[in-house]
Amino acid sequence: MDISAVNALSYEDFVNIFGNVVEKCPLITAAVWTSRPFTSLNALEATINEFIDALPESGKEGILRCHPDLAGRDLHSGTLTRESREEQARAGMDALSSAEASRVARLNEEYKRRFGFPFVICARATDKTRILRELSERCQNARAAEMARGIEEVKKICRLRLQGLVLSDAPNKL
Amino acid sequence: MDISAVNALSYEDFVNIFGNVVEKCPLITAAVWTSRPFTSLNALEATINEFIDALPESGKEGILRCHPDLAGRDLHSGTLTRESREEQARAGMDALSSAEASRVARLNEEYKRRFGFPFVICARATDKTRILRELSERCQNARAAEMARGIEEVKKICRLRLQGLVLSDAPNKL
Repeated sequence: MDISAVNALSYEDFVNIFGNVVEKCPLITAAVWTSRPFTSLNALEATINEFIDALPESGKEGILRCHPDLAGRDLHSGTLTRESREEQARAGMDALSSAEASRVARLNEEYKRRFGFPFVICARATDKTRILRELSERCQNARAAEMARGIEEVKKICRLRLQGLVLSDAPNKL
Repeated sequence: MDISAVNALSYEDFVNIFGNVVEKCPLITAAVWTSRPFTSLNALEATINEFIDALPESGKEGILRCHPDLAGRDLHSGTLTRESREEQARAGMDALSSAEASRVARLNEEYKRRFGFPFVICARATDKTRILRELSERCQNARAAEMARGIEEVKKICRLRLQGLVLSDAPNKL
């Protein structure tokens, strides 16, 4: 799909196709449709990022809170979005050893208790070993740093989802 | 559920319960969790309204674009959210005559072509006759007036959904 095809979409088709580039936040996709036509995929991505950056802190926290835990309840109950399921599986989060699973569950809870939002990481841009290390390390960060870091990861996830939808030769890594 | 029970919810439970008080916008629910504790249901509602009011115009349009058409594709394909299905059914939108259905479809398309977002109305606060009349009349409005009016309707829908979730003696009308 080239950018002129993207620009020709009705808002309904645009939201149907791109509504989950930011996890469970079709509001953001639906909002940026206002800014079409986009000169490129990068311009569409930049518009999404600007919309996110302009939200109040609570709105950024809201975006993070729309994300599922890694290897959490939604993965086990089969209620992940298709995109999250594929990303978590690709990083091996659906095949943790029992010791790893316990450790992730404990750290996820610690992280959420500490910050009031979940640990968000672009699973496709990393791997299981690094995810487990980061989860442990990032629990120690200051809250403001983790908010900024979580939103950075949201943008990476968004970039890869956009590329996957628009480019046939999309890379798997950033 | 009294307000102290609401205030005691984790963000995950809060979003699971209240995530669709603004149609398909769990981001908003997840954002206002930051402002807890709420002194009352009205205070929770006011926080949601303030979050909506603080969004840029594109964000408000985004909220409207997350709403399904009345008696539209989602109703016919069974993909409405539970809340929208109940509200549209209560107003009789799932039992239009063939002439009414054609008229609504035509006016919905005209409205969307004109404004770039769908006709939004709090179906529970009105009835089929008035909905059909408003759809026809509101197609003639200026865009800015319709944006403001649509957001007003979003807030009414939100109030009734909140009341339905929190109060056992929730009224069916505003």
